[in-house]
Amino acid sequence: MSGSARVLGVLGGMGPLAGATFMQRLTLLTPAERDQDHIPSILWSDPRVPDRTAARLAGGEDPLPWLLRGIAGLEAAGCGAIAIPCNTAHGWFEAMQEATSLPILHIVEAAADELLRLGITNGTVGLMATSGTLAMKLYQGRLAARGYECLVPAEEEMARLVMPAIELVKANRVADSYAPLAEIARRLVERGARAVVLGCTEIPLGIAAGPALPFPVADTIDALARASIAWAKPAG
Amino acid sequence: MSGSARVLGVLGGMGPLAGATFMQRLTLLTPAERDQDHIPSILWSDPRVPDRTAARLAGGEDPLPWLLRGIAGLEAAGCGAIAIPCNTAHGWFEAMQEATSLPILHIVEAAADELLRLGITNGTVGLMATSGTLAMKLYQGRLAARGYECLVPAEEEMARLVMPAIELVKANRVADSYAPLAEIARRLVERGARAVVLGCTEIPLGIAAGPALPFPVADTIDALARASIAWAKPAG
Repeated sequence: MSGSARVLGVLGGMGPLAGATFMQRLTLLTPAERDQDHIPSILWSDPRVPDRTAARLAGGEDPLPWLLRGIAGLEAAGCGAIAIPCNTAHGWFEAMQEATSLPILHIVEAAADELLRLGITNGTVGLMATSGTLAMKLYQGRLAARGYECLVPAEEEMARLVMPAIELVKANRVADSYAPLAEIARRLVERGARAVVLGCTEIPLGIAAGPALPFPVADTIDALARASIAWAKPAG
Repeated sequence: MSGSARVLGVLGGMGPLAGATFMQRLTLLTPAERDQDHIPSILWSDPRVPDRTAARLAGGEDPLPWLLRGIAGLEAAGCGAIAIPCNTAHGWFEAMQEATSLPILHIVEAAADELLRLGITNGTVGLMATSGTLAMKLYQGRLAARGYECLVPAEEEMARLVMPAIELVKANRVADSYAPLAEIARRLVERGARAVVLGCTEIPLGIAAGPALPFPVADTIDALARASIAWAKPAG
Protein backbone atom coordinates (compact mmCIF):
# COMPACT_ATOMS: atom_id res chain seq x y z
CA MET A 1 0.00 0.00 0.00
CA SER A 2 1.49 3.33 -0.94
CA GLY A 3 0.74 6.95 -0.04
CA SER A 4 1.69 9.12 2.90
CA ALA A 5 -0.62 7.59 5.53
CA ARG A 6 0.68 5.12 8.09
CA VAL A 7 -0.40 1.62 7.06
CA LEU A 8 -0.96 -0.89 9.86
CA GLY A 9 0.00 -4.52 9.33
CA VAL A 10 -2.06 -7.01 11.32
CA LEU A 11 -0.70 -10.52 11.79
CA GLY A 12 -3.96 -12.31 12.48
CA GLY A 13 -5.52 -15.72 11.99
CA MET A 14 -4.64 -16.77 15.55
CA GLY A 15 -7.55 -17.31 15.74
CA PRO A 16 -9.22 -15.86 12.67
CA LEU A 17 -12.29 -14.60 14.57
CA ALA A 18 -10.05 -12.63 16.94
CA GLY A 19 -8.17 -11.10 13.98
CA ALA A 20 -11.40 -10.11 12.23
CA THR A 21 -12.85 -8.68 15.43
CA PHE A 22 -9.62 -6.73 15.96
CA MET A 23 -10.17 -5.10 12.54
CA GLN A 24 -13.74 -4.26 13.53
CA ARG A 25 -12.72 -2.74 16.87
CA LEU A 26 -9.86 -0.84 15.18
CA THR A 27 -12.48 0.69 12.89
CA LEU A 28 -15.07 1.43 15.58
CA LEU A 29 -12.52 3.00 17.96
CA THR A 30 -11.08 5.32 15.28
CA PRO A 31 -12.57 8.82 15.24
CA ALA A 32 -13.97 9.05 11.70
CA GLU A 33 -16.68 10.79 9.73
CA ARG A 34 -16.22 8.89 6.45
CA ASP A 35 -14.33 5.96 4.93
CA GLN A 36 -11.29 8.06 4.12
CA ASP A 37 -10.72 8.99 7.80
CA HIS A 38 -10.10 5.34 8.74
CA ILE A 39 -6.68 3.65 9.06
CA PRO A 40 -5.27 1.88 6.00
CA SER A 41 -4.43 -1.64 7.13
CA ILE A 42 -3.72 -5.14 5.92
CA LEU A 43 -4.86 -8.23 7.81
CA TRP A 44 -2.73 -11.29 7.13
CA SER A 45 -5.05 -14.02 8.37
CA ASP A 46 -3.24 -17.34 8.15
CA PRO A 47 -5.01 -19.73 10.52
CA ARG A 48 -2.59 -22.51 9.49
CA VAL A 49 0.04 -21.20 11.95
CA PRO A 50 0.74 -24.18 14.22
CA ASP A 51 -0.87 -24.01 17.68
CA ARG A 52 1.26 -21.78 19.92
CA THR A 53 0.43 -23.44 23.24
CA ALA A 54 1.05 -26.92 21.82
CA ALA A 55 4.43 -25.76 20.50
CA ARG A 56 5.52 -24.51 23.94
CA LEU A 57 4.05 -27.20 26.16
CA ALA A 58 3.71 -30.34 24.08
CA GLY A 59 6.54 -30.30 21.55
CA GLY A 60 4.23 -29.25 18.71
CA GLU A 61 5.41 -27.76 15.40
CA ASP A 62 7.29 -24.46 15.71
CA PRO A 63 5.07 -21.54 14.63
CA LEU A 64 8.00 -19.13 14.16
CA PRO A 65 8.59 -19.75 10.41
CA TRP A 66 4.86 -19.07 9.80
CA LEU A 67 4.95 -15.92 11.90
CA LEU A 68 8.02 -14.63 10.07
CA ARG A 69 6.39 -15.37 6.70
CA GLY A 70 3.41 -13.22 7.71
CA ILE A 71 5.60 -10.36 8.89
CA ALA A 72 7.61 -10.48 5.67
CA GLY A 73 4.35 -10.42 3.68
CA LEU A 74 3.05 -7.40 5.58
CA GLU A 75 6.39 -5.63 5.20
CA ALA A 76 6.44 -6.33 1.44
CA ALA A 77 2.89 -4.97 1.15
CA GLY A 78 4.01 -1.61 2.53
CA CYS A 79 3.01 -1.69 6.20
CA GLY A 80 4.77 0.59 8.69
CA ALA A 81 4.11 -1.28 11.95
CA ILE A 82 2.79 -4.67 13.04
CA ALA A 83 0.04 -5.54 15.51
CA ILE A 84 -0.50 -9.19 16.48
CA PRO A 85 -3.93 -9.90 18.00
CA CYS A 86 -2.77 -13.16 19.62
CA ASN A 87 -1.24 -13.05 23.08
CA THR A 88 0.45 -16.46 22.95
CA ALA A 89 2.27 -15.55 19.71
CA HIS A 90 4.08 -12.89 21.76
CA GLY A 91 6.16 -15.74 23.16
CA TRP A 92 8.10 -15.35 19.90
CA PHE A 93 8.13 -11.54 20.10
CA GLU A 94 11.91 -11.06 20.30
CA ALA A 95 12.57 -13.39 17.34
CA MET A 96 9.92 -11.59 15.27
CA GLN A 97 11.21 -8.14 16.23
CA GLU A 98 14.77 -9.18 15.32
CA ALA A 99 13.57 -10.26 11.87
CA THR A 100 11.97 -6.95 10.89
CA SER A 101 12.84 -3.27 10.99
CA LEU A 102 9.15 -2.43 11.54
CA PRO A 103 8.05 -1.75 15.10
CA ILE A 104 5.85 -4.50 16.56
CA LEU A 105 3.32 -3.17 19.08
CA HIS A 106 3.46 -5.38 22.20
CA ILE A 107 0.05 -6.61 23.34
CA VAL A 108 1.09 -6.92 27.00
CA GLU A 109 2.19 -3.27 27.15
CA ALA A 110 -1.13 -2.37 25.50
CA ALA A 111 -2.96 -4.41 28.16
CA ALA A 112 -1.12 -2.55 30.92
CA ASP A 113 -2.10 0.77 29.31
CA GLU A 114 -5.70 -0.48 29.26
CA LEU A 115 -5.54 -1.15 33.02
CA LEU A 116 -4.51 2.49 33.52
CA ARG A 117 -7.36 3.62 31.29
CA LEU A 118 -9.71 1.63 33.54
CA GLY A 119 -8.32 3.46 36.56
CA ILE A 120 -6.46 0.43 37.94
CA THR A 121 -2.98 1.78 38.70
CA ASN A 122 -1.55 -1.03 40.85
CA GLY A 123 -2.42 -4.06 42.99
CA THR A 124 -3.61 -7.56 42.18
CA VAL A 125 -5.16 -8.25 38.77
CA GLY A 126 -6.59 -11.52 37.50
CA LEU A 127 -5.00 -12.96 34.37
CA MET A 128 -6.91 -15.23 32.00
CA ALA A 129 -4.78 -16.57 29.15
CA THR A 130 -3.72 -19.77 27.43
CA SER A 131 -1.58 -22.31 29.28
CA GLY A 132 1.20 -21.33 26.86
CA THR A 133 1.01 -17.64 27.77
CA LEU A 134 0.98 -18.47 31.49
CA ALA A 135 3.90 -20.92 31.20
CA MET A 136 5.99 -18.44 29.17
CA LYS A 137 5.18 -15.77 31.82
CA LEU A 138 4.43 -13.22 29.11
CA TYR A 139 2.47 -11.06 31.56
CA GLN A 140 3.86 -11.63 35.04
CA GLY A 141 7.22 -9.83 34.73
CA ARG A 142 5.96 -7.01 32.50
CA LEU A 143 3.00 -6.29 34.78
CA ALA A 144 5.19 -6.52 37.91
CA ALA A 145 7.45 -3.84 36.39
CA ARG A 146 4.39 -1.61 36.20
CA GLY A 147 3.20 -2.25 39.75
CA TYR A 148 0.74 -5.11 39.36
CA GLU A 149 0.68 -8.61 40.76
CA CYS A 150 -0.91 -11.36 38.62
CA LEU A 151 -3.42 -13.86 39.99
CA VAL A 152 -3.95 -16.81 37.65
CA PRO A 153 -6.52 -19.64 37.59
CA ALA A 154 -5.63 -22.97 39.20
CA GLU A 155 -4.23 -25.65 36.92
CA GLU A 156 -7.45 -27.65 37.23
CA GLU A 157 -9.48 -24.57 36.21
CA MET A 158 -7.21 -24.01 33.20
CA ALA A 159 -7.65 -27.59 32.02
CA ARG A 160 -11.36 -27.92 32.70
CA LEU A 161 -12.72 -24.44 31.93
CA VAL A 162 -10.34 -21.90 30.33
CA MET A 163 -8.63 -23.94 27.59
CA PRO A 164 -11.85 -25.73 26.49
CA ALA A 165 -13.63 -22.35 26.31
CA ILE A 166 -10.87 -20.91 24.10
CA GLU A 167 -11.22 -23.95 21.84
CA LEU A 168 -15.00 -23.40 21.63
CA VAL A 169 -14.38 -19.90 20.21
CA LYS A 170 -11.96 -21.26 17.61
CA ALA A 171 -14.65 -23.81 16.62
CA ASN A 172 -17.21 -20.95 16.16
CA ARG A 173 -19.15 -21.96 19.31
CA VAL A 174 -18.71 -18.49 20.79
CA ALA A 175 -21.92 -18.32 22.87
CA ASP A 176 -21.07 -21.61 24.62
CA SER A 177 -17.78 -20.16 25.85
CA TYR A 178 -19.38 -17.38 27.91
CA ALA A 179 -20.36 -19.35 31.02
CA PRO A 180 -16.98 -21.00 31.77
CA LEU A 181 -15.05 -17.79 31.01
CA ALA A 182 -17.33 -15.57 33.10
CA GLU A 183 -17.15 -18.10 35.95
CA ILE A 184 -13.34 -17.99 36.07
CA ALA A 185 -13.28 -14.19 35.87
CA ARG A 186 -15.70 -14.05 38.83
CA ARG A 187 -13.57 -16.46 40.86
CA LEU A 188 -10.42 -14.37 40.28
CA VAL A 189 -12.25 -11.28 41.58
CA GLU A 190 -13.52 -13.26 44.61
CA ARG A 191 -9.89 -14.20 45.30
CA GLY A 192 -8.82 -10.55 45.38
CA ALA A 193 -8.31 -9.32 41.80
CA ARG A 194 -9.30 -5.66 41.25
CA ALA A 195 -9.70 -6.26 37.51
CA VAL A 196 -9.28 -9.16 35.10
CA VAL A 197 -7.00 -9.09 32.06
CA LEU A 198 -8.50 -11.06 29.14
CA GLY A 199 -5.00 -12.08 28.02
CA CYS A 200 -6.00 -14.30 25.10
CA THR A 201 -7.83 -12.66 22.20
CA GLU A 202 -10.45 -15.44 22.07
CA ILE A 203 -11.56 -14.61 25.62
CA PRO A 204 -13.12 -11.16 24.97
CA LEU A 205 -15.12 -12.74 22.11
CA GLY A 206 -16.64 -15.22 24.55
CA ILE A 207 -17.17 -12.62 27.28
CA ALA A 208 -18.96 -10.33 24.78
CA ALA A 209 -21.49 -13.10 24.08
CA GLY A 210 -23.25 -12.71 27.44
CA PRO A 211 -24.15 -10.11 30.10
CA ALA A 212 -21.41 -7.58 30.96
CA LEU A 213 -19.28 -8.54 33.98
CA PRO A 214 -19.74 -6.34 37.08
CA PHE A 215 -16.00 -5.52 37.48
CA PRO A 216 -13.32 -3.99 35.22
CA VAL A 217 -11.91 -6.21 32.47
CA ALA A 218 -8.95 -5.31 30.24
CA ASP A 219 -9.85 -6.58 26.76
CA THR A 220 -6.61 -7.20 24.86
CA ILE A 221 -8.33 -6.82 21.46
CA ASP A 222 -9.45 -3.28 22.35
CA ALA A 223 -6.13 -2.58 24.08
CA LEU A 224 -4.13 -3.46 20.95
CA ALA A 225 -6.59 -1.54 18.75
CA ARG A 226 -6.07 1.58 20.87
CA ALA A 227 -2.27 1.17 20.70
CA SER A 228 -2.57 0.78 16.91
CA ILE A 229 -4.67 3.93 16.56
CA ALA A 230 -2.14 5.84 18.69
CA TRP A 231 0.59 4.68 16.29
CA ALA A 232 -1.37 5.42 13.10
CA LYS A 233 -2.77 8.78 14.19
CA PRO A 234 -0.17 10.18 16.59
CA ALA A 235 -1.63 13.69 16.38
CA GLY A 236 -5.12 12.51 17.44
CA MET B 1 1.00 -16.70 1.52
CA SER B 2 2.30 -20.05 0.37
CA GLY B 3 1.20 -23.64 0.86
CA SER B 4 -1.37 -25.80 -0.86
CA ALA B 5 -4.53 -24.21 0.56
CA ARG B 6 -6.59 -21.75 -1.45
CA VAL B 7 -5.88 -18.25 -0.13
CA LEU B 8 -8.71 -15.71 -0.43
CA GLY B 9 -7.90 -12.09 -1.21
CA VAL B 10 -10.37 -9.57 0.17
CA LEU B 11 -10.39 -6.08 -1.29
CA GLY B 12 -11.97 -4.25 1.62
CA GLY B 13 -11.92 -0.83 3.24
CA MET B 14 -15.07 0.25 1.37
CA GLY B 15 -16.08 0.81 4.10
CA PRO B 16 -13.64 -0.66 6.60
CA LEU B 17 -16.37 -1.87 8.99
CA ALA B 18 -17.99 -3.84 6.17
CA GLY B 19 -14.64 -5.41 5.23
CA ALA B 20 -13.89 -6.38 8.84
CA THR B 21 -17.40 -7.79 9.32
CA PHE B 22 -16.98 -9.75 6.09
CA MET B 23 -13.88 -11.40 7.61
CA GLN B 24 -15.87 -12.20 10.74
CA ARG B 25 -18.79 -13.71 8.83
CA LEU B 26 -16.36 -15.65 6.58
CA THR B 27 -14.93 -17.18 9.76
CA LEU B 28 -18.26 -17.87 11.47
CA LEU B 29 -19.83 -19.45 8.35
CA THR B 30 -16.86 -21.79 7.75
CA PRO B 31 -17.29 -25.28 9.20
CA ALA B 32 -14.31 -25.52 11.57
CA GLU B 33 -13.22 -27.26 14.74
CA ARG B 34 -9.91 -25.39 15.24
CA ASP B 35 -7.89 -22.48 13.86
CA GLN B 36 -6.25 -24.62 11.19
CA ASP B 37 -9.63 -25.53 9.59
CA HIS B 38 -10.31 -21.87 8.69
CA ILE B 39 -9.62 -20.21 5.33
CA PRO B 40 -6.26 -18.46 4.85
CA SER B 41 -7.08 -14.96 3.69
CA ILE B 42 -5.68 -11.47 3.33
CA LEU B 43 -7.80 -8.36 3.86
CA TRP B 44 -6.51 -5.31 1.99
CA SER B 45 -8.34 -2.56 3.84
CA ASP B 46 -7.58 0.73 2.14
CA PRO B 47 -10.33 3.17 3.14
CA ARG B 48 -8.63 5.91 1.12
CA VAL B 49 -10.24 4.59 -2.11
CA PRO B 50 -12.18 7.58 -3.46
CA ASP B 51 -15.96 7.44 -2.91
CA ARG B 52 -17.52 5.22 -5.58
CA THR B 53 -20.92 6.90 -5.74
CA ALA B 54 -19.35 10.37 -5.96
CA ALA B 55 -17.12 9.16 -8.81
CA ARG B 56 -20.10 7.93 -10.83
CA LEU B 57 -22.64 10.66 -10.07
CA ALA B 58 -20.72 13.79 -9.18
CA GLY B 59 -17.49 13.73 -11.17
CA GLY B 60 -15.43 12.67 -8.11
CA GLU B 61 -11.94 11.13 -8.29
CA ASP B 62 -11.72 7.82 -10.16
CA PRO B 63 -11.35 4.91 -7.69
CA LEU B 64 -10.08 2.47 -10.35
CA PRO B 65 -6.32 3.05 -9.84
CA TRP B 66 -6.80 2.41 -6.10
CA LEU B 67 -8.83 -0.73 -6.76
CA LEU B 68 -6.18 -2.05 -9.17
CA ARG B 69 -3.42 -1.34 -6.64
CA GLY B 70 -5.27 -3.44 -4.08
CA ILE B 71 -5.80 -6.31 -6.49
CA ALA B 72 -2.13 -6.24 -7.48
CA GLY B 73 -1.17 -6.27 -3.79
CA LEU B 74 -3.40 -9.27 -3.07
CA GLU B 75 -2.08 -11.09 -6.13
CA ALA B 76 1.55 -10.40 -5.11
CA ALA B 77 0.79 -11.72 -1.61
CA GLY B 78 -0.25 -15.09 -3.06
CA CYS B 79 -4.06 -14.98 -3.18
CA GLY B 80 -5.95 -17.25 -5.56
CA ALA B 81 -9.25 -15.35 -5.88
CA ILE B 82 -10.64 -11.95 -4.96
CA ALA B 83 -13.79 -11.04 -3.04
CA ILE B 84 -14.84 -7.38 -2.81
CA PRO B 85 -17.26 -6.64 0.04
CA CYS B 86 -18.46 -3.37 -1.55
CA ASN B 87 -21.33 -3.48 -4.03
CA THR B 88 -20.69 -0.07 -5.62
CA ALA B 89 -17.07 -1.02 -6.44
CA HIS B 90 -18.55 -3.69 -8.75
CA GLY B 91 -19.27 -0.84 -11.17
CA TRP B 92 -15.58 -1.27 -12.07
CA PHE B 93 -15.80 -5.08 -12.13
CA GLU B 94 -14.92 -5.58 -15.79
CA ALA B 95 -11.87 -3.28 -15.60
CA MET B 96 -10.68 -5.07 -12.47
CA GLN B 97 -11.24 -8.53 -13.95
CA GLU B 98 -9.33 -7.53 -17.10
CA ALA B 99 -6.37 -6.46 -14.97
CA THR B 100 -5.92 -9.76 -13.14
CA SER B 101 -5.78 -13.45 -13.97
CA LEU B 102 -7.39 -14.27 -10.60
CA PRO B 103 -11.13 -14.91 -10.56
CA ILE B 104 -13.14 -12.13 -8.90
CA LEU B 105 -16.28 -13.41 -7.17
CA HIS B 106 -19.21 -11.18 -8.23
CA ILE B 107 -21.26 -9.92 -5.28
CA VAL B 108 -24.48 -9.60 -7.35
CA GLU B 109 -24.34 -13.25 -8.42
CA ALA B 110 -23.72 -14.13 -4.77
CA ALA B 111 -26.77 -12.05 -3.78
CA ALA B 112 -28.91 -13.92 -6.33
CA ASP B 113 -27.67 -17.24 -4.91
CA GLU B 114 -28.64 -15.96 -1.47
CA LEU B 115 -32.20 -15.27 -2.68
CA LEU B 116 -32.43 -18.90 -3.81
CA ARG B 117 -31.11 -20.04 -0.42
CA LEU B 118 -33.93 -18.00 1.16
CA GLY B 119 -36.44 -19.84 -1.05
CA ILE B 120 -37.20 -16.81 -3.23
CA THR B 121 -36.93 -18.18 -6.76
CA ASN B 122 -38.55 -15.36 -8.76
CA GLY B 123 -40.82 -12.31 -8.58
CA THR B 124 -40.36 -8.82 -7.22
CA VAL B 125 -37.54 -8.13 -4.76
CA GLY B 126 -36.70 -4.86 -3.05
CA LEU B 127 -33.24 -3.46 -3.68
CA MET B 128 -31.50 -1.17 -1.20
CA ALA B 129 -28.15 0.12 -2.41
CA THR B 130 -26.15 3.30 -2.94
CA SER B 131 -27.30 5.83 -5.53
CA GLY B 132 -24.19 4.83 -7.50
CA THR B 133 -25.13 1.13 -7.55
CA LEU B 134 -28.71 1.98 -8.61
CA ALA B 135 -27.56 4.41 -11.34
CA MET B 136 -25.04 1.90 -12.75
CA LYS B 137 -27.83 -0.73 -12.72
CA LEU B 138 -25.47 -3.31 -11.19
CA TYR B 139 -28.40 -5.42 -10.01
CA GLN B 140 -31.34 -4.85 -12.33
CA GLY B 141 -30.10 -6.69 -15.45
CA ARG B 142 -28.35 -9.49 -13.60
CA LEU B 143 -31.38 -10.18 -11.42
CA ALA B 144 -33.75 -9.95 -14.41
CA ALA B 145 -31.68 -12.65 -16.14
CA ARG B 146 -32.38 -14.87 -13.13
CA GLY B 147 -36.13 -14.21 -13.01
CA TYR B 148 -36.43 -11.31 -10.56
CA GLU B 149 -37.77 -7.80 -10.94
CA CYS B 150 -36.14 -5.05 -8.81
CA LEU B 151 -38.16 -2.54 -6.81
CA VAL B 152 -36.04 0.41 -5.66
CA PRO B 153 -36.69 3.26 -3.20
CA ALA B 154 -37.95 6.61 -4.55
CA GLU B 155 -35.33 9.25 -5.25
CA GLU B 156 -36.52 11.28 -2.27
CA GLU B 157 -36.18 8.21 -0.01
CA MET B 158 -32.65 7.60 -1.30
CA ALA B 159 -31.60 11.19 -0.58
CA ARG B 160 -33.34 11.57 2.79
CA LEU B 161 -33.01 8.09 4.34
CA VAL B 162 -30.83 5.52 2.54
CA MET B 163 -27.70 7.53 1.68
CA PRO B 164 -27.56 9.34 5.06
CA ALA B 165 -27.93 5.97 6.83
CA ILE B 166 -25.02 4.49 4.84
CA GLU B 167 -22.93 7.52 5.80
CA LEU B 168 -23.83 6.99 9.49
CA VAL B 169 -22.32 3.49 9.33
CA LYS B 170 -19.13 4.82 7.74
CA ALA B 171 -18.93 7.37 10.59
CA ASN B 172 -19.24 4.53 13.20
CA ARG B 173 -22.82 5.59 14.14
CA VAL B 174 -24.14 2.11 13.32
CA ALA B 175 -27.05 2.00 15.79
CA ASP B 176 -28.45 5.28 14.45
CA SER B 177 -28.70 3.81 10.95
CA TYR B 178 -31.15 1.06 11.91
CA ALA B 179 -34.39 3.07 11.96
CA PRO B 180 -34.13 4.68 8.49
CA LEU B 181 -32.87 1.45 6.88
CA ALA B 182 -35.56 -0.72 8.47
CA GLU B 183 -38.21 1.83 7.47
CA ILE B 184 -37.22 1.68 3.79
CA ALA B 185 -37.04 -2.13 3.81
CA ARG B 186 -40.58 -2.24 5.27
CA ARG B 187 -41.88 0.17 2.64
CA LEU B 188 -40.44 -1.95 -0.19
CA VAL B 189 -42.24 -5.01 1.20
CA GLU B 190 -45.50 -3.02 1.53
CA ARG B 191 -45.10 -2.11 -2.15
CA GLY B 192 -44.89 -5.75 -3.18
CA ALA B 193 -41.34 -7.02 -2.62
CA ARG B 194 -41.12 -10.67 -1.49
CA ALA B 195 -37.65 -10.08 -0.04
CA VAL B 196 -35.20 -7.22 0.24
CA VAL B 197 -31.63 -7.32 -1.07
CA LEU B 198 -29.26 -5.36 1.18
CA GLY B 199 -27.17 -4.36 -1.84
CA CYS B 200 -24.62 -2.17 -0.06
CA THR B 201 -22.38 -3.81 2.55
CA GLU B 202 -23.01 -1.00 5.06
CA ILE B 203 -26.74 -1.80 5.11
CA PRO B 204 -26.58 -5.24 6.81
CA LEU B 205 -24.41 -3.65 9.54
CA GLY B 206 -27.18 -1.15 10.29
CA ILE B 207 -29.96 -3.73 10.02
CA ALA B 208 -28.10 -6.02 12.47
CA ALA B 209 -28.15 -3.21 15.08
CA GLY B 210 -31.89 -3.57 15.80
CA PRO B 211 -34.71 -6.14 15.91
CA ALA B 212 -34.75 -8.68 13.05
CA LEU B 213 -37.02 -7.74 10.13
CA PRO B 214 -40.14 -9.91 9.69
CA PHE B 215 -39.44 -10.77 6.01
CA PRO B 216 -36.52 -12.33 4.10
CA VAL B 217 -33.47 -10.16 3.52
CA ALA B 218 -30.48 -11.08 1.34
CA ASP B 219 -27.41 -9.84 3.21
CA THR B 220 -24.63 -9.25 0.65
CA ILE B 221 -21.88 -9.65 3.27
CA ASP B 222 -23.08 -13.16 4.11
CA ALA B 223 -23.79 -13.88 0.44
CA LEU B 224 -20.21 -13.05 -0.59
CA ALA B 225 -18.83 -14.95 2.42
CA ARG B 226 -20.75 -18.07 1.33
CA ALA B 227 -19.48 -17.68 -2.26
CA SER B 228 -15.93 -17.33 -0.90
CA ILE B 229 -16.23 -20.46 1.24
CA ALA B 230 -17.57 -22.37 -1.79
CA TRP B 231 -14.47 -21.26 -3.71
CA ALA B 232 -11.98 -22.00 -0.91
CA LYS B 233 -13.46 -25.34 0.14
CA PRO B 234 -15.05 -26.75 -3.02
CA ALA B 235 -15.29 -30.27 -1.55
CA GLY B 236 -17.29 -29.07 1.51
